[in-house]
Amino acid sequence: MTSGAPSGNTQGSKTWSGNFFEDFQLGQVIRHATPRTVTEGDRAVYGSLYPTRFAVPSSAAFAASVGLAAPDGTGHPVEELIAFHIAFGKTVPDVSLNAVANLGYAECRFHRPVVPGDTLSTTSEVIGLKQNSNGRSGVVYVRSTATNQRGEIALDWARWVMVHKRDPEAPAPDAVVPELAPAVAATDLIVPAGLDFSSYDAEAAGEPHRFDDYVVGERIDHVDGVTLTESEHQQATRLWQNTAKVHFNVEARPDGNRLVYGGHVISMARALSFNGLANAQLIAAINAGAHTAPAFAGDTIYAWSEVLDKAEVPGDRNIGVLRLRLVATKGRDPSMTLRGEDGKYGPGVLLDLDYWAFVPR
Amino acid sequence: MTSGAPSGNTQGSKTWSGNFFEDFQLGQVIRHATPRTVTEGDRAVYGSLYPTRFAVPSSAAFAASVGLAAPDGTGHPVEELIAFHIAFGKTVPDVSLNAVANLGYAECRFHRPVVPGDTLSTTSEVIGLKQNSNGRSGVVYVRSTATNQRGEIALDWARWVMVHKRDPEAPAPDAVVPELAPAVAATDLIVPAGLDFSSYDAEAAGEPHRFDDYVVGERIDHVDGVTLTESEHQQATRLWQNTAKVHFNVEARPDGNRLVYGGHVISMARALSFNGLANAQLIAAINAGAHTAPAFAGDTIYAWSEVLDKAEVPGDRNIGVLRLRLVATKGRDPSMTLRGEDGKYGPGVLLDLDYWAFVPR
Amino acid sequence: MTSGAPSGNTQGSKTWSGNFFEDFQLGQVIRHATPRTVTEGDRAVYGSLYPTRFAVPSSAAFAASVGLAAPDGTGHPVEELIAFHIAFGKTVPDVSLNAVANLGYAECRFHRPVVPGDTLSTTSEVIGLKQNSNGRSGVVYVRSTATNQRGEIALDWARWVMVHKRDPEAPAPDAVVPELAPAVAATDLIVPAGLDFSSYDAEAAGEPHRFDDYVVGERIDHVDGVTLTESEHQQATRLWQNTAKVHFNVEARPDGNRLVYGGHVISMARALSFNGLANAQLIAAINAGAHTAPAFAGDTIYAWSEVLDKAEVPGDRNIGVLRLRLVATKGRDPSMTLRGEDGKYGPGVLLDLDYWAFVPR
Repeated sequence: MTSGAPSGNTQGSKTWSGNFFEDFQLGQVIRHATPRTVTEGDRAVYGSLYPTRFAVPSSAAFAASVGLAAPDGTGHPVEELIAFHIAFGKTVPDVSLNAVANLGYAECRFHRPVVPGDTLSTTSEVIGLKQNSNGRSGVVYVRSTATNQRGEIALDWARWVMVHKRDPEAPAPDAVVPELAPAVAATDLIVPAGLDFSSYDAEAAGEPHRFDDYVVGERIDHVDGVTLTESEHQQATRLWQNTAKVHFNVEARPDGNRLVYGGHVISMARALSFNGLANAQLIAAINAGAHTAPAFAGDTIYAWSEVLDKAEVPGDRNIGVLRLRLVATKGRDPSMTLRGEDGKYGPGVLLDLDYWAFVPR
Repeated sequence: MTSGAPSGNTQGSKTWSGNFFEDFQLGQVIRHATPRTVTEGDRAVYGSLYPTRFAVPSSAAFAASVGLAAPDGTGHPVEELIAFHIAFGKTVPDVSLNAVANLGYAECRFHRPVVPGDTLSTTSEVIGLKQNSNGRSGVVYVRSTATNQRGEIALDWARWVMVHKRDPEAPAPDAVVPELAPAVAATDLIVPAGLDFSSYDAEAAGEPHRFDDYVVGERIDHVDGVTLTESEHQQATRLWQNTAKVHFNVEARPDGNRLVYGGHVISMARALSFNGLANAQLIAAINAGAHTAPAFAGDTIYAWSEVLDKAEVPGDRNIGVLRLRLVATKGRDPSMTLRGEDGKYGPGVLLDLDYWAFVPR
Repeated sequence: MTSGAPSGNTQGSKTWSGNFFEDFQLGQVIRHATPRTVTEGDRAVYGSLYPTRFAVPSSAAFAASVGLAAPDGTGHPVEELIAFHIAFGKTVPDVSLNAVANLGYAECRFHRPVVPGDTLSTTSEVIGLKQNSNGRSGVVYVRSTATNQRGEIALDWARWVMVHKRDPEAPAPDAVVPELAPAVAATDLIVPAGLDFSSYDAEAAGEPHRFDDYVVGERIDHVDGVTLTESEHQQATRLWQNTAKVHFNVEARPDGNRLVYGGHVISMARALSFNGLANAQLIAAINAGAHTAPAFAGDTIYAWSEVLDKAEVPGDRNIGVLRLRLVATKGRDPSMTLRGEDGKYGPGVLLDLDYWAFVPR
């Protein structure tokens, strides 16, 4: 097992400046620093930054009523996106500190709920490499796995980023592009142990709409908007120990703006989607995600969703899954237009996220 | 029991747009979403947003010394206002999303301390309805009750709001205006089980002034000021899952300003009142509250208090109660003038809150 | 034991306006309000405000692996600076509310890790007094000790501040200036019970550099920068219950700026120093600190370090200590210049902090 750290060190320096394209090797396994314990504090800070109201992470009593916490409230899961952001943040120093662009992710599955007290560590394997024709950068494909302190998988996902070369003269590796599924199959989703929606309290959860009320092709305008602030996006991104300079430092970009972490937009849109999708309680998987335009403090974020697919989970626990497209926009677009006639994303579209969520039947 | 959700749905939409005046019926009981578990994280975020130093919520050891926590610190109560804001926030989507104005509240009593691990749920009963003469809106009176996961009452209060009608042609209900007490009687206050001030450590608490040192009619200038920021008021309001759009969205008001949640001003003023009222440890009841002017980021908030009444709690636990008027102002007013000669609130007055607090004798 | 509170009360008022120079007496012991319980919430808020990634406070599992937490994660220490800021904040209302300037601190030792659930209280003894020749102010020297709920010392330090006199005619006390060590001797550092670096996981911690890799005189440019925001420094400072008005109130200074609490700069620089000093896991002592220029929102903070000294801790637990100078600058200074040719601090230098840290050998 090779640590990501030594190779990317600045010459003669103890300071870490990230890996460059030629530092990655096919099959290389990078064990990322630093393990991070999730706490009730994370839940509270998250709730101060995003207008989330999903009943499972909001209430230990509700979580217990669907089999996801003990009667005394212990083992109360946090939002899946808390786990995702922490696990993802770990990979940044080794994988994307010298990224030209984050190109995409796929096959992200949540294997088990993360609860306060869990310590997450992330490991990545290089599963693909392809130098760009310009010879100055290349695409790195990694499969990352976050485990808890017992070594159990919490989540895993694939991701590909375009990374600068340190030395344009460095030889190109053999091109290997992994085959990644356009979406996780419904049958491959992992239902959390204990989850049971058969005595689901929709009134407490906030909306009456269940699995059968959603139709493939249906679009939902989530109506509400939130204006971003500099402090809030910085606090969120820092909480995940994400070290990408552009989020925190006005001197890091030529325009002097701090770029909002894409995950901040994801969490904001997911929280806004409560209004219409209150019963999409748990994220089961993320199939794909595109950050189609940058977001900055002062932007007002809205969201809409489209039902892409649906499936019933076998058994008598009343569980269904909805495949949802979650779109975040800058400014509200009541027409919910994803792409213009030219096939390109509309100018207000910031995020196009494809995910599966567990809902009660 | 009727859920607030279905009736107010936008036609043909899954998105909730709140109840309108004609959606309320006398005697109707609305069970509000979403239950919310209070955590140590809430205490910390609260402490980062308000300059609070009251010894009971600040210190588990101090709380134990006055009978409000176990010797090992478990059962350490959070600020009463944390419980109030959470419980109140639950009612917003159903009661006041279409409010023209929050007119007032009364008879708010804290029944027992709220501690980390408690899950709060809120239910409201419609206790009065009165359509306005213009036919376009009406006043809704509700009595709301927040209970913990054991079904015990944590707090309850009455509130009345002016709400838009969806359809001006909808018939007016019979006018019913409930009788509400101008103040909770001292004898109706609920002393927390276990509370005992007989070995009260005033030095640790920060000030020597006890029950006997306060005189009815006395005014206290709390001296300190805090300049509000956009991020801080948003974070506070979001922490309580309050969904009122005007607090978060610059596109929600014609002037493009985000209105500061009135509860943010209450918590700020209460925290500032430590300087002079450090021993007003626990809020026992809120008798009345008027938000007399809007607050915005950039405003600097000061506070002063007036002793309105006082009473001894029978028994040998050295407990007294002070009835206090807490006034928040924009800019400091050393003259502590509540109303001008015309009987109207002075231009700098933002909040006029009437409450009872437990103090050591 | 004399409380600091009564003497400094404004005449005829319940409001506390702080002690003035003539209120202090040699040998006086001030027991500061308010005890404060540390929680997991503090760890999370801290992590949202500073880009900290040190493995011990980040991960309960890592802390357990070096003997600083139980296998189940209980007893997981928080950052030493959380304890420092809380303990220091307690002294502000009594010692430095009327300070002209914070002149310095010395001999700060961390006696034992602080863990969630610990309640910190601070007491100060006046160990020196020296009136200034102008007769309008004087220097007060205090030794402050923070203890936990079991009465064990968590940390102690000496500090001296210049404080206004209330009455210039008040007689000068006999001048007493205590002798304070320029640095804590390596042999006087207190190794936390249980700490054992013999199976230290450098890969998890983030960097391979150990005790032997650091050379006295070496300088490390930590490269990364963070742009300060108004909300973030206010939230941090408030979390420590620090009441100095200049940090929160635009009306408190003639220039209308909110001064950033010096401790905010310390925590920011310490977190930035992870990049190059990831294994400087625990702060053992603070030898000296100078806040050489004010910081404001909008400033971008960078940091560099110099290795001043090093020593091995006897025994087979693979522990060493590095004495480090941590310098925070406004804007990056790749030349890492502390002082100009005139011997004065460079214009960009904000902080010059001298401390000891435990590192694995």
